[in-house]
Amino acid sequence: MQTINAQVRPEGTLEVLSKLEVAKLLDTSQGGLHELFRRCSLAVLNCGSAVDDSKAVLDQHKEFDIRVLQQQRGIKLEVLNAPASAFVDGEMIKGIREHLFSVLRDIVFTGSEIVSNPAFNPEVSEDITSAVFHILRNAGSLITNASPNLVVCWGGHSISREEYDYTKEVGHEFGLRGLNVCTGCGPGAMKGPMKGATIGHAKQRVYDARYVGVSEPGIIAAEPPNPIVNELVIMPDIEKRLEAFVRLGHGIVVFPGGVGTAEEILHLLGILLHPDNKNLPFPVILTGPAECAGYFELIDRFVTSTIGREVRRCYRIIIDDPAGVAREMKEGISLVREFRKQNGDAYYFNWLLRIEQQFQIPFVPTHQNMASLELHRQQEPHNLAANLRRAFSGIVAGNVKAEGIRTIEEHGPFELRGDAEVLKPLDELLAAFVAQGRMKLPGVCYEPCYRLVA
Amino acid sequence: MQTINAQVRPEGTLEVLSKLEVAKLLDTSQGGLHELFRRCSLAVLNCGSAVDDSKAVLDQHKEFDIRVLQQQRGIKLEVLNAPASAFVDGEMIKGIREHLFSVLRDIVFTGSEIVSNPAFNPEVSEDITSAVFHILRNAGSLITNASPNLVVCWGGHSISREEYDYTKEVGHEFGLRGLNVCTGCGPGAMKGPMKGATIGHAKQRVYDARYVGVSEPGIIAAEPPNPIVNELVIMPDIEKRLEAFVRLGHGIVVFPGGVGTAEEILHLLGILLHPDNKNLPFPVILTGPAECAGYFELIDRFVTSTIGREVRRCYRIIIDDPAGVAREMKEGISLVREFRKQNGDAYYFNWLLRIEQQFQIPFVPTHQNMASLELHRQQEPHNLAANLRRAFSGIVAGNVKAEGIRTIEEHGPFELRGDAEVLKPLDELLAAFVAQGRMKLPGVCYEPCYRLVA
Amino acid sequence: MQTINAQVRPEGTLEVLSKLEVAKLLDTSQGGLHELFRRCSLAVLNCGSAVDDSKAVLDQHKEFDIRVLQQQRGIKLEVLNAPASAFVDGEMIKGIREHLFSVLRDIVFTGSEIVSNPAFNPEVSEDITSAVFHILRNAGSLITNASPNLVVCWGGHSISREEYDYTKEVGHEFGLRGLNVCTGCGPGAMKGPMKGATIGHAKQRVYDARYVGVSEPGIIAAEPPNPIVNELVIMPDIEKRLEAFVRLGHGIVVFPGGVGTAEEILHLLGILLHPDNKNLPFPVILTGPAECAGYFELIDRFVTSTIGREVRRCYRIIIDDPAGVAREMKEGISLVREFRKQNGDAYYFNWLLRIEQQFQIPFVPTHQNMASLELHRQQEPHNLAANLRRAFSGIVAGNVKAEGIRTIEEHGPFELRGDAEVLKPLDELLAAFVAQGRMKLPGVCYEPCYRLVA
Amino acid sequence: MQTINAQVRPEGTLEVLSKLEVAKLLDTSQGGLHELFRRCSLAVLNCGSAVDDSKAVLDQHKEFDIRVLQQQRGIKLEVLNAPASAFVDGEMIKGIREHLFSVLRDIVFTGSEIVSNPAFNPEVSEDITSAVFHILRNAGSLITNASPNLVVCWGGHSISREEYDYTKEVGHEFGLRGLNVCTGCGPGAMKGPMKGATIGHAKQRVYDARYVGVSEPGIIAAEPPNPIVNELVIMPDIEKRLEAFVRLGHGIVVFPGGVGTAEEILHLLGILLHPDNKNLPFPVILTGPAECAGYFELIDRFVTSTIGREVRRCYRIIIDDPAGVAREMKEGISLVREFRKQNGDAYYFNWLLRIEQQFQIPFVPTHQNMASLELHRQQEPHNLAANLRRAFSGIVAGNVKAEGIRTIEEHGPFELRGDAEVLKPLDELLAAFVAQGRMKLPGVCYEPCYRLVA
Repeated sequence: MQTINAQVRPEGTLEVLSKLEVAKLLDTSQGGLHELFRRCSLAVLNCGSAVDDSKAVLDQHKEFDIRVLQQQRGIKLEVLNAPASAFVDGEMIKGIREHLFSVLRDIVFTGSEIVSNPAFNPEVSEDITSAVFHILRNAGSLITNASPNLVVCWGGHSISREEYDYTKEVGHEFGLRGLNVCTGCGPGAMKGPMKGATIGHAKQRVYDARYVGVSEPGIIAAEPPNPIVNELVIMPDIEKRLEAFVRLGHGIVVFPGGVGTAEEILHLLGILLHPDNKNLPFPVILTGPAECAGYFELIDRFVTSTIGREVRRCYRIIIDDPAGVAREMKEGISLVREFRKQNGDAYYFNWLLRIEQQFQIPFVPTHQNMASLELHRQQEPHNLAANLRRAFSGIVAGNVKAEGIRTIEEHGPFELRGDAEVLKPLDELLAAFVAQGRMKLPGVCYEPCYRLVA
Repeated sequence: MQTINAQVRPEGTLEVLSKLEVAKLLDTSQGGLHELFRRCSLAVLNCGSAVDDSKAVLDQHKEFDIRVLQQQRGIKLEVLNAPASAFVDGEMIKGIREHLFSVLRDIVFTGSEIVSNPAFNPEVSEDITSAVFHILRNAGSLITNASPNLVVCWGGHSISREEYDYTKEVGHEFGLRGLNVCTGCGPGAMKGPMKGATIGHAKQRVYDARYVGVSEPGIIAAEPPNPIVNELVIMPDIEKRLEAFVRLGHGIVVFPGGVGTAEEILHLLGILLHPDNKNLPFPVILTGPAECAGYFELIDRFVTSTIGREVRRCYRIIIDDPAGVAREMKEGISLVREFRKQNGDAYYFNWLLRIEQQFQIPFVPTHQNMASLELHRQQEPHNLAANLRRAFSGIVAGNVKAEGIRTIEEHGPFELRGDAEVLKPLDELLAAFVAQGRMKLPGVCYEPCYRLVA
Repeated sequence: MQTINAQVRPEGTLEVLSKLEVAKLLDTSQGGLHELFRRCSLAVLNCGSAVDDSKAVLDQHKEFDIRVLQQQRGIKLEVLNAPASAFVDGEMIKGIREHLFSVLRDIVFTGSEIVSNPAFNPEVSEDITSAVFHILRNAGSLITNASPNLVVCWGGHSISREEYDYTKEVGHEFGLRGLNVCTGCGPGAMKGPMKGATIGHAKQRVYDARYVGVSEPGIIAAEPPNPIVNELVIMPDIEKRLEAFVRLGHGIVVFPGGVGTAEEILHLLGILLHPDNKNLPFPVILTGPAECAGYFELIDRFVTSTIGREVRRCYRIIIDDPAGVAREMKEGISLVREFRKQNGDAYYFNWLLRIEQQFQIPFVPTHQNMASLELHRQQEPHNLAANLRRAFSGIVAGNVKAEGIRTIEEHGPFELRGDAEVLKPLDELLAAFVAQGRMKLPGVCYEPCYRLVA
Repeated sequence: MQTINAQVRPEGTLEVLSKLEVAKLLDTSQGGLHELFRRCSLAVLNCGSAVDDSKAVLDQHKEFDIRVLQQQRGIKLEVLNAPASAFVDGEMIKGIREHLFSVLRDIVFTGSEIVSNPAFNPEVSEDITSAVFHILRNAGSLITNASPNLVVCWGGHSISREEYDYTKEVGHEFGLRGLNVCTGCGPGAMKGPMKGATIGHAKQRVYDARYVGVSEPGIIAAEPPNPIVNELVIMPDIEKRLEAFVRLGHGIVVFPGGVGTAEEILHLLGILLHPDNKNLPFPVILTGPAECAGYFELIDRFVTSTIGREVRRCYRIIIDDPAGVAREMKEGISLVREFRKQNGDAYYFNWLLRIEQQFQIPFVPTHQNMASLELHRQQEPHNLAANLRRAFSGIVAGNVKAEGIRTIEEHGPFELRGDAEVLKPLDELLAAFVAQGRMKLPGVCYEPCYRLVA
């Protein structure tokens, strides 16, 4: 494996760190931030790789290290044994350089200002939202004085060529209409819309386009940000990452994906189904090329048969019509704008959206927690959606996250329990995902990390 | 055919026109500029179309018109019955809007300052070069204080998917290395490198990238500029357009194409073979994906067997290696930089390149002129190259230019005369182009516009 | 006298010159531009000096020279024996550097594109206006897409401390209201408003403020542009300079001055009194501190007693009220805006203002021409104003222009003839100017260059 | 008194506040930030006033109030009964608008992130420095990637016309050399250098010039920032304000002033005399026009006779030579640059300067504290300097700060005790200040707020 040693500084203004902050980043002890910083930096540098297994990435790059150097003009970063794919003719790609400094910024901020600050009680819903707000603000992602125009794109990182080309076309249509794109970073449905939007923006001379990537330490190695992303934010965990998506974005497009995508859809439905959010406009479009009409039928059948038919007011399915998706999204966002204006809510942060604590508290996918999920219909729709989301979340962890993979290696597959009318559709959906190869990157034979127990 | 009426103004500073200049643009008489302006504007607006036949384009849009409106804040343009493809949801794409104003700028300038100015004698080599310089300067394309970094990309507008993807990859590698792209506008090999470079520039945060398109009134309808082009220049004729390419660009990449591309290669070789240019560094790379190695073998065999083997010092062929092409070009350009620095020649205009009058005077492809071309080896290599270039030029005109097509319709195919050792390789090459479908856009059955007479 | 040799390049984009243009600038023969360029450049570099006698400036700096160097990144200028006051610690002040390149730009443009172009007939009124338009456009001074906000400030270059402080205060109030300032360059009433406006603009965070200086080769050495001027335009002669003022500016403020100022006032009144301009809004304010109320009474009495009382509709006198002047000017300009909007006239160039040929043709102040001026009341008011203007013009030349001073040295003072009812007020006015020391810079004993013959 | 009600938003990006932060600003209870915000905002809006008595300002504007409005595009501020001098023709001056938002920013940040954060122990020297760092960083004042160029200017807010003009000339010379200016806000010696620098920067086309004002809630009403200040920072107390000056600035110029200025000089000397700072370059220049040579002789005699002659290595006195001051400062700063580079210390924050806790802890000038200051020579020079500084600090409070004035009104003048060899020079100095009218704004008869007890 080819690696490179280099010192890098950002183009524009450097991060300014205090002596204490630098010390924490260099601190390799348990309480220090060094290992976290090293792992996220490696992920960012490894963006050209096709490996989507965090543990494998870490194992491949044991020699990699990163250090902060304080100099007269600001901070520099020194990388040792960095993946050569991050460089062109020996020089680090600027987009990746920026990502390294974004990682630095967010890890320092979360470490110093959020975790240790008594103002952010991790058990209190408002405090969690406040933490999300502060991290996004510090990252410069709360842009005032701009009309709503940020479309969150979700979908698989491992999709077919046709699906990928379709995401590019949709992104192109977004770009032609001045819409910006936010994704979870990574390849596939998270890269395509940005590539397409880049061309669309170029045609429309949009020079301040936003390509926002929101990641978190557990997923970033499996879905490293592509260098087009020009606003990278590292949230502390998956729940805050999802909260960032729905509070930052003005609409959501879901492309075909696998369990990760299904998890995101269920999370979103769980929130939108909450009675308080009933009148809040929030455009959600599920879309793909003609050949994946079946995928969305699967999803649609699954959510209507478990949660109920009223869930359909929360989303629209559009097949094989990129310009139609963009037009529909633009109209949906104009309603969002109108609503926020009337209610004096910020365009840049969706304060009015009610998110319950159960969607904010990290779900730790232990075998115990997975086994005790309530997967039955004797509860309110948004609560069932929340539980289904957790089930998917655990399965994603077992598939691609270092911690989850280790747990499965030790204790065998998770067990999920519940009513047949919930478990049966779930089993069908998961079976279909496996059959369609939507569980992992292509070329790797998939072994399920879960077992359903009726 | 869907059309739209609209009034447009440019984003930034508007063109400022005097009362006299506006009057000339509105003047529909023989001496006025209106018809020229109308035709070029239509071409620009028609960029989404798949028709590459100028006459057909004009016939389709007889109702199209454009007018200049003088207002308190500057000039506005009003278009009537404009092709709907230039608009997104009823608004003209900004890139196309810019192109309209570029057309306006160049037609006014050439009309008022070049054609009627006694300082530019169209028979004198230095004056022609001076005219090229003044048009480019007025267009803002002579950018000082920047290092050489402009790669001219030539190649067919009608190429295969693989070839197109390859041009995108090469463009991507250029973009990653901070190189800018200049083409003759149009689709295919002229669009691919710009698309690729756009993504590469985005990754490298190059915000002032140049996508230069150099066109001329006779070809623009067949090869309309794609909206990524952010510097469009309309030269008055094909010869000045080619002179603009070689004086503006710092290196040239030739992708697979047809006769047009072959014409450009011969024009270039004719200039570079001139004894005065022997020590002038000028990187020329012929490249394509694996499957078109044959195409360049054809070209290579043709030029070495007609002009002679010494021609090979003027170009390099690289097959299926986008990063290699970009690295080689970057190195070649660094030699150009060194040379210009040592000789005090401008980075932004290649004053030192000797271009003889025979490459500057418009070649009018009448049946008479085509028939009297000297196609034999009893002349200096650069003169033979010049004559071969004219032969190709006539064939391109007969294929895609309105005037040329009409001539052929009236008088039948051109006749070309010469020695067998020149005519035979030429016939082979043209036959191969026809066989490979490199003469026209796909889907149109090709009828040759020439006949060889040994 | 301390002098410095240096090579300078401008900050931003360099002037791009063709080989021919450079040759003309280096051409020291009669037809070449070198001497003109040298003299204007010297004036610009000499801006710190207190000498207002062009001839003296040239005599002091016989060793000064300037050369154009063509280099790979654009043009550089080399100055030899330049006045040290243009430098700070050995480096040329950037504002002065810019002025040198403005001089270069305008001398090249006027020399190549105006003087030798058959399109600009120097005897035809429309062509003269067209030439003014082209020079201003080439200088980048016709700014579209901006609301009218340019106030021309006229007044003496040699005024008292109190008058100077007053011009600063008025400029400050302009700056606070976002108004820009245009003057004839030079010290005194031409520098004060710019200094004041600079502070006002700083307080209002106006970062793109315009400080326009319009000069001409004959006056520039006596009234060199102060370095705050960030748009310097060199018009070819005094008449085009005055036309530039009235077509470019949206209102005019006249501070106390001497004969030069009186000349400008008469020129302006001659134009505004033309019947065609009767309904054209054009705010003109005469203003000064309390102590110079008398000066404007003199002017008012002179113009009403010679031209007639109806002249008062063309101007307003405001004494000792800087904020009042700024408010009045802002209101006046809003009427200009309204009028141009309704008439579709450009905000950036006053096309609708009628200027007769007699205000455009250079008046050559020979003894013969001065003696044959018609200074009587048997003519239309605007014609009398025109003749009075010429009388003043000759006197200014005799005072401060190299050519004029030489003429007076050779042939003695000018003679002026006319009716007593015109000559008497004129004599009184000029006597008052002499008495108040308004004829020359302080410290130099004034000797009149004219003689009245009733 | 004329007042105005208005709603204002900043030009560029708005401050983004969380719901909690807005609530704190609206909280008028003891623990809330509203009163502090109101008082500082009033000070900023009152900048045109000639009153330098904080209490008087507050009393005059009891009806003034300010409120934060959260809107869709960000925060707006509503002011009620604001001083009319902050407006031009009914619109708030943009510089003042910016200041309001700077006040908002710093009060929110200090209130939420510094005061309540356990990481900043107000008793620990490193934590205090850290707090200064964080406030400056949040204010955007730690600018990386720039060479040292920030000159702190100290001096009186109430000085003579000649002294004021001299500060303008020095500022002009700084501006011509690309140096930026930092002051304590306010009129006089704090406004003059900025005005002069503005003109110098305009001549040198410095468009990103910094005019940094560092204030604190206790002094801001007496010395409101002039609107030229384009970086306003409100530190929480006088000690952090002084620490900000010496860590942010790269050199210090002291103009004539009164006790406030003397306090600043002693503070500075106390720090620079610390053995650890002996080899740290830090240019300090005391300067003024010819007529105030005596003032600096007074200061020089006072510090050499109390602290000792070795203090002279810390400063240089230059009389009546603005260009000389600027040249000397520029050279001094080049040594600072060299030193920081060699030691890897940041250009934008003087980490290496040792500041002892006694210079960081707020000195509360009660009668008790003032009476127990150790004013004798049996201590290290830097400690004596520290105690003398406190004595001056108390006197400044008694003169112009609301709290101090009230204390004196209640308990009579402060008593100061110590050795004659310290108290005698002190008494002489203070007597000279009173004699020269350096204690208060002109026109107000001065009554001493202290009494020396030997």
